[in-house]
Amino acid sequence: MAENRGILIVVSGPAGSGKGTVLNAVFEKSKDFVYSVSATTRAPRPGEEDGVHYHFITKERFEELIADDTVVEHTCYCGNYYGTLRTVIEKDLCNGKNVILEIEVDGAMQIKKKFPEALLILVVPPSYDILEARLRGRGTNTEDDIKNRLERSREELKFFDEYDYLLINDDIDEVSSNFISIIESEKHSTKRNKNFYNKFFNI
Amino acid sequence: MAENRGILIVVSGPAGSGKGTVLNAVFEKSKDFVYSVSATTRAPRPGEEDGVHYHFITKERFEELIADDTVVEHTCYCGNYYGTLRTVIEKDLCNGKNVILEIEVDGAMQIKKKFPEALLILVVPPSYDILEARLRGRGTNTEDDIKNRLERSREELKFFDEYDYLLINDDIDEVSSNFISIIESEKHSTKRNKNFYNKFFNI
Repeated sequence: MAENRGILIVVSGPAGSGKGTVLNAVFEKSKDFVYSVSATTRAPRPGEEDGVHYHFITKERFEELIADDTVVEHTCYCGNYYGTLRTVIEKDLCNGKNVILEIEVDGAMQIKKKFPEALLILVVPPSYDILEARLRGRGTNTEDDIKNRLERSREELKFFDEYDYLLINDDIDEVSSNFISIIESEKHSTKRNKNFYNKFFNI
Repeated sequence: MAENRGILIVVSGPAGSGKGTVLNAVFEKSKDFVYSVSATTRAPRPGEEDGVHYHFITKERFEELIADDTVVEHTCYCGNYYGTLRTVIEKDLCNGKNVILEIEVDGAMQIKKKFPEALLILVVPPSYDILEARLRGRGTNTEDDIKNRLERSREELKFFDEYDYLLINDDIDEVSSNFISIIESEKHSTKRNKNFYNKFFNI
């Protein structure tokens, strides 16, 4: 019943929320979802394929694309650009795929402004205590790291009501199923079926 | 994860949409849904129980309740009032039940104004031709009846984008599952979990 265009989905969540694991489970359960492949100006590492792991482009090209408004969100890290290209997501959406962008709150807000029809999902751990325990459990973080990440989570989660849905990650199987359900339900929303009346009455 | 309060659901759809059959399937599949029992001033028919089929009350009492704003939507038919009492739906919502009101567009708009958190679902047949065929198939309608109903559907469906979701009824089993999914997804919406941040950080 829904229109055939895919849905652009932004997924955020603090470090320790397990959003990556949730998304892996989503990809396993359904073929309707794809990751958006980011563009970057850094050099490919051994084994990385252009168009699969990243779209590898030059710094000059990246800056041209920013000027063209083809880069819908980007960040700079260690002297290299990383970002999402409008052309890349547009192609998948047209093919009926739901395109997932896994990005932080800042990028999410950029996408929301440029794509008001994007669906924003926030994945959070069941509680603050569990978040803290997960960060400590990794064993690779210093006390300062942990404190910084917790503080950052506190700041990021203040934006929770800018998101459309909130998934509390207490069970990967359940949460990934809920994720898929949410997208399927969204396809029945009237705001995503604006041409219904004219289609129904052949206008 | 969701808050425990149920969701108030308004279901509308033109005659011939099969919304009643969809709802019966929903009740069979899930115990989380209840019908709102309407109040009426007409006399009980043999076999009808107070509080089960209707809340039977006097005309004077009904008018008092209207004055008190306890009647959230009502209509007058053959000299009797029929309507929905705030106290009735409130009790079920508090108990975590999703309360279904099966009402026409006019009543739906009254509910939307009084309960902005209500979820409005429109059930429609797969096409105009099928709608017409279903009305003719009943065999009990005169040609004038059919024309009136079709014209009425055309007017009612103009309000489709006042509804949140649109369910095209081409398969009862699928549509009733989608109906349940939509409600479950809604429980994950941030607008229905406004106290998340404070709860998460124990504020």
